[in-house]
Amino acid sequence: MANDPLVFDVFARNCTSRPVMENISGRWGGLTLAALHEGTHRFNELRRRVDGVSEKMLSQTLHALERDGLVVREVRSAIPPRVEYSLTDAGAKIATKLSELIELVEAEMPQITLAQERYDAARSD
Amino acid sequence: MANDPLVFDVFARNCTSRPVMENISGRWGGLTLAALHEGTHRFNELRRRVDGVSEKMLSQTLHALERDGLVVREVRSAIPPRVEYSLTDAGAKIATKLSELIELVEAEMPQITLAQERYDAARSD
Repeated sequence: MANDPLVFDVFARNCTSRPVMENISGRWGGLTLAALHEGTHRFNELRRRVDGVSEKMLSQTLHALERDGLVVREVRSAIPPRVEYSLTDAGAKIATKLSELIELVEAEMPQITLAQERYDAARSD
Repeated sequence: MANDPLVFDVFARNCTSRPVMENISGRWGGLTLAALHEGTHRFNELRRRVDGVSEKMLSQTLHALERDGLVVREVRSAIPPRVEYSLTDAGAKIATKLSELIELVEAEMPQITLAQERYDAARSD
């Protein structure tokens, strides 16, 4: 699979889709795309929205997503210049699906929390 | 948000949904759920399907997903006993959405690859 340039398969260890999938669904990449799905953000706005991310990690995350063609960085002329981040068409498609996944996980959390409590109780007997 | 037990928000640093999201969309959790979306697997079948995962990482991943109530581990009586892993209802819902995300990313890979080449070329001038 990974040897055929036209077929991409994240299950294959060396497929180039795997690091892309990690940029997208990793801790900070996922939250950054989901935040940009809500609209264009400046760097510091993103830093506040993606609660807990460091300046360095957010910067690395944005570079990786920009390299993958999912995020655009635009400098608006103003004093001081404003740097804005938004999604490309491909980024918007992926962020939509990712936001659906996040909403689903949040909706399942009461049930997941119960499962965790049951699991932990069974092991503390 | 994280203080209200009924409202879960992955954007909030201390919300319990955040580690769950990481179990689900992290490198091995995502591939494991996507593999189980294809059907019940035994441990060694999963290890082959999730190409590159170590025995230890797969075992940790399965425990975390079992604790979250997304995966069930069943021991079938046979000689030797067979241990099978499958999705719960909540796990199936989440794995369906995750598999859609994976398919979308794989479908966008030709365009993503072009973007990466363009990005790297612009920086090697």
